[in-house]
Amino acid sequence: MNEMSVKPATETLMANAIRALTMDAVQAANSGHPGAPMGMADVAAVLFNRFMTLDPKAPNWADRDRFVMSAGHGSMLVYAINHLLGYGDMDMDQLRNFRQFGYRTAGHPEYGHADGIETTTGPLGQGITTAVGMALAERMHNARFGDDLVDHYTYVIAGDGCLMEGISHEAIDMAGHWQLGRMIVLWDDNKITIDGATNLSTSTDQKARFAAAGWHVLSIDGHNAGEIADAIDEARRDPRPSLIACRTIIGYGAPNKQGTSATHGAPLGDDEIAATREALNWPHPRFEIPQPVYEAWQAIAKRGAATRAAWERRLAASPMGKDFTASLSGPDAKALDKAISAYKAQLSKDAPKVATRKASEMALEVINATLPNSVGGSADLTGSNNTRTSEMTPVSKDTYGGSYIHYGIREHGMAAVMNGIALHGGFLAYGGTFLCFADYARGAMRLSALMGLPVTYVMTHDSIGLGEDGPTHQPVEHLASLRAMPNMLVFRPCDAVETAEAWQIAVTQSRTPSTLALSRQGLPTVRTDHARDNLTARGAYVLRGADGPRDITLIATGSEVEIALKAADMLAELNINAAVVSAPCFELFAQQDPAYRAGVLGNAPRVGVEAAVQQGWNAILGENSTFIGMTGFGASAPAGQLYQHFGITPQAVAQAAVSLHNQEV
Amino acid sequence: MNEMSVKPATETLMANAIRALTMDAVQAANSGHPGAPMGMADVAAVLFNRFMTLDPKAPNWADRDRFVMSAGHGSMLVYAINHLLGYGDMDMDQLRNFRQFGYRTAGHPEYGHADGIETTTGPLGQGITTAVGMALAERMHNARFGDDLVDHYTYVIAGDGCLMEGISHEAIDMAGHWQLGRMIVLWDDNKITIDGATNLSTSTDQKARFAAAGWHVLSIDGHNAGEIADAIDEARRDPRPSLIACRTIIGYGAPNKQGTSATHGAPLGDDEIAATREALNWPHPRFEIPQPVYEAWQAIAKRGAATRAAWERRLAASPMGKDFTASLSGPDAKALDKAISAYKAQLSKDAPKVATRKASEMALEVINATLPNSVGGSADLTGSNNTRTSEMTPVSKDTYGGSYIHYGIREHGMAAVMNGIALHGGFLAYGGTFLCFADYARGAMRLSALMGLPVTYVMTHDSIGLGEDGPTHQPVEHLASLRAMPNMLVFRPCDAVETAEAWQIAVTQSRTPSTLALSRQGLPTVRTDHARDNLTARGAYVLRGADGPRDITLIATGSEVEIALKAADMLAELNINAAVVSAPCFELFAQQDPAYRAGVLGNAPRVGVEAAVQQGWNAILGENSTFIGMTGFGASAPAGQLYQHFGITPQAVAQAAVSLHNQEV
Repeated sequence: MNEMSVKPATETLMANAIRALTMDAVQAANSGHPGAPMGMADVAAVLFNRFMTLDPKAPNWADRDRFVMSAGHGSMLVYAINHLLGYGDMDMDQLRNFRQFGYRTAGHPEYGHADGIETTTGPLGQGITTAVGMALAERMHNARFGDDLVDHYTYVIAGDGCLMEGISHEAIDMAGHWQLGRMIVLWDDNKITIDGATNLSTSTDQKARFAAAGWHVLSIDGHNAGEIADAIDEARRDPRPSLIACRTIIGYGAPNKQGTSATHGAPLGDDEIAATREALNWPHPRFEIPQPVYEAWQAIAKRGAATRAAWERRLAASPMGKDFTASLSGPDAKALDKAISAYKAQLSKDAPKVATRKASEMALEVINATLPNSVGGSADLTGSNNTRTSEMTPVSKDTYGGSYIHYGIREHGMAAVMNGIALHGGFLAYGGTFLCFADYARGAMRLSALMGLPVTYVMTHDSIGLGEDGPTHQPVEHLASLRAMPNMLVFRPCDAVETAEAWQIAVTQSRTPSTLALSRQGLPTVRTDHARDNLTARGAYVLRGADGPRDITLIATGSEVEIALKAADMLAELNINAAVVSAPCFELFAQQDPAYRAGVLGNAPRVGVEAAVQQGWNAILGENSTFIGMTGFGASAPAGQLYQHFGITPQAVAQAAVSLHNQEV
Repeated sequence: MNEMSVKPATETLMANAIRALTMDAVQAANSGHPGAPMGMADVAAVLFNRFMTLDPKAPNWADRDRFVMSAGHGSMLVYAINHLLGYGDMDMDQLRNFRQFGYRTAGHPEYGHADGIETTTGPLGQGITTAVGMALAERMHNARFGDDLVDHYTYVIAGDGCLMEGISHEAIDMAGHWQLGRMIVLWDDNKITIDGATNLSTSTDQKARFAAAGWHVLSIDGHNAGEIADAIDEARRDPRPSLIACRTIIGYGAPNKQGTSATHGAPLGDDEIAATREALNWPHPRFEIPQPVYEAWQAIAKRGAATRAAWERRLAASPMGKDFTASLSGPDAKALDKAISAYKAQLSKDAPKVATRKASEMALEVINATLPNSVGGSADLTGSNNTRTSEMTPVSKDTYGGSYIHYGIREHGMAAVMNGIALHGGFLAYGGTFLCFADYARGAMRLSALMGLPVTYVMTHDSIGLGEDGPTHQPVEHLASLRAMPNMLVFRPCDAVETAEAWQIAVTQSRTPSTLALSRQGLPTVRTDHARDNLTARGAYVLRGADGPRDITLIATGSEVEIALKAADMLAELNINAAVVSAPCFELFAQQDPAYRAGVLGNAPRVGVEAAVQQGWNAILGENSTFIGMTGFGASAPAGQLYQHFGITPQAVAQAAVSLHNQEV
């Protein structure tokens, strides 16, 4: 970039500004992590000064370079840089109140709290993997709109922790496989973790490891501006993703503490801060930055603004401009509603008996035909998750124009990559695995929820109904554990119609991820009366009213709705009037007004039915109730036998209802 | 081993017996995975025939070699081998009823279902990581009792799926770091996954990757007995852990389907089975094995029995024999009870105000002094989790005699390694991280619960009370999600006394893992009246009775018990008599008899208090109640401010109580 005009002395000052702001803010908060920002300040200064393209006036500009601080505890590096660059919402008051209530400067960078934070990091390994999703989305968007509109890099600062976490293996394997040459990881190789030296717990040759995954690998002194610049320059030109191992001194500049774990996660203390100011020849008071240093940083912003202006002109002139802009907007909800409605009408007429995983594929055929930026995938269970629709072609290093991602056997990585795709923009991501393996993906699923990213998890084989694979593959606690997560919609549709409705809700969310729990086994269509309204959007509704005054309410989800309906038939023969409520989404039901909720639940005793643990049901069931479900792990056998063995049958539901009814009368 | 006496033709027959039993059993079940057992049959035949030491008559003999089928879907390989070896509980009827209800031959190998199944596998990557724990425990046990008593190998068959999962990175990094030279991984390098060729989703050079982690790496033709034997022999002699890349053909022997994903997870079909019998020159009927083949397999058992007899003589003669046997038995519950009781009495007297994470360390000082085989560790948060007690020294490749494990930043790996240590025997394992990162470890924690392994998860920083680190580090749904898991005890003690009681319960479990949720912030000792009984063992109990007829019951856990007590004081000033119930373990409370439960909960309205989501509380609260807790994610700020902001205060609890009380009167 501007290599000729760079004065190393200026970059040292730029880096020292990061160091000073970091140590001052951590001291003011009396908590935080000075080590990583001080150690990586030189690398960051050179990266931003010579290479980063961004415009603080348009923080969400589509073609900006992405910067991900995967070592999220080093959040002060991000806040200091964004302050110095002149982001409007990152004034000095924010830094003075680092980690305080109501400020944007949270302990770890939180997406949405301030401009220029590309993703939430802190749980280690998430940033580097989310960045893989961003870098993949960049190439996929480029394949659709060309170099004029999509041409940016994804830079990551990762620490030892990120590289020790298992998810990092999934990340680097994917990035190497997809040859994401515009992804550049700057590894803060400081040889220190919280417990002490890295050699307490690891002996892996990280450079050899990345090379084994197809990466381009470089080693530099992370405090030498020339080496930093040369390495980034070379990395940008190499067609492979690049790891730059930056040998650094943690807490660089603190004369008595640098190079030790003492700088990792605690304030340096006033004396050491004073000594650091002296050692760095940084005589300025706390939270004061000399004007020339501001000017040096803000030159980056000026350069970026000019680049963006040229890009805006290209966009305006591009015949693809409208499609490009549309790709970054939400889905066409109206067109989708029309298509789903027609599809639902047909379903109610045809009444197919299909597994909801198959119904999901059928719904996706409609959705993917309507929403051109839908991107699907599976963690190596494509044929089981039914995630690939007829028109989808695979994404690979040679075919970024595809829209189906073979994520491999990497559930956690898939979830984080979906987060990255959503954060990058341009695509609507969904991906599948077995519901049981939500456990593997949970770290990244929680970040979907925390960041409010509208990604969709297609979780099939959602109960003992999967049969012979046995308890390791049979979720029993997973519905409860996902329902416990804030801002996650958990759908368990009972038939093809509800599955279509759930999908419609999921893909039109703007701030909430969704999990679809889908059956392996075939289920009849129970919604044979077409309703234009999306009944699933109410969370729960009366699927079949009682024939007369309601004696009992049977409430079920997913594959157990069929069981509840059969139980209602049995009860009718005993002159007990049962209403059957389908409850495909507890979270949406909880959002309904009390009158609607009361009407659905009624005053009669209730029986809940779900092939899972009871936790989470009591709020719906109340006290005069019985729950028919699981109390422990499943077993390996054909599904029908398991339902019998665990007593999740129409007979058991009817008996529970009779028993409650007899107590009433 | 017996290399001179081996006839390759015999080993081919031994392998074909595995193939035949596999394809017949999968066909009979009409579900299952023939590909891996058929592909790895030659490797398994040579491994068992020439190297494995085991005795089916003493399946739990401590010094047996361990065999882990990490690619657990290939369970028929294990069942076929154990049948052929003559395990008493694996007769042909078990194989005929593969994957059927009530049989030991579950879809995936389930620990405890049959002898000779060393660990439950199926969730990919768990087996190889659990095996790291076994191999580490072998060295640690060896360091204590010497080569005469502890001298065995750990063999693993791993597939591509195992090696793509992130946890495999944690596994191989640990095994390399600890130089577990007696761990030998046989990689089924068949280039096929469910979705198709491995090159759909991965480009990693696995051999280079393992070498980067410090492993000894070999490549062989997995169908060539000589190469297999030479490689295993070399691997056993190398001081590093070994990867043997076995180039195999998936579904080997099936003339039309071998080498394709069609053999991975579906029956071959009658025609292909017939063709396979012909191709393998295996004319025997379904589920019939010629006597000479049985004899060849059972020669392994005979060899093992002789080896064991010699070992038993050494054990009987050893001065360490008694200690060795004791190390494999449960903890000395009586000695522990005495020590904990004395410690509790002192605590009630001293009434320290300490965080429960610190109280956990104090309790561990007592426990570790009493139970010599306690092994602790942390995922790089030793100082925060307070897991290392004063006498503990680290385990390393040079000091297997240590008892503290620096697991590195590897929560999932830590949990699986603890499972492996527990399965190996000889040690009582606990390990720590932040409660929030239970999400990372959940895949292995579920296996602790499913297998019934008494390991203890020390989960500190258990709420918004951790303060400034913010929502990425603040658990809100984790208590609920762990309580949802069958067979997991979740403790949230309120002070140092309850923490000691929780630890006592955890370390004396025989079939149940425990999670201790512990505070970062200081908490007063509220149990100032010493009780010899372990009150925590009741799950919940009246900590402070009402002063007169009970008007209201306040129920709290952990750090919120202090808040409930303050609220009770406020209510007393309003002449409202509140009882305060501490509920450190919901699971144990659910196990109490109804009369005890009713007595604790009382008939008055109830207020529940926990800095977490409500899910899971309704069963305790009933309908006439209020819950004070979290409804979404936390925030970054000092803990006190967060409690105020989220309304988890004595005032809020008292107000809720007043409101409920007013409705009553």
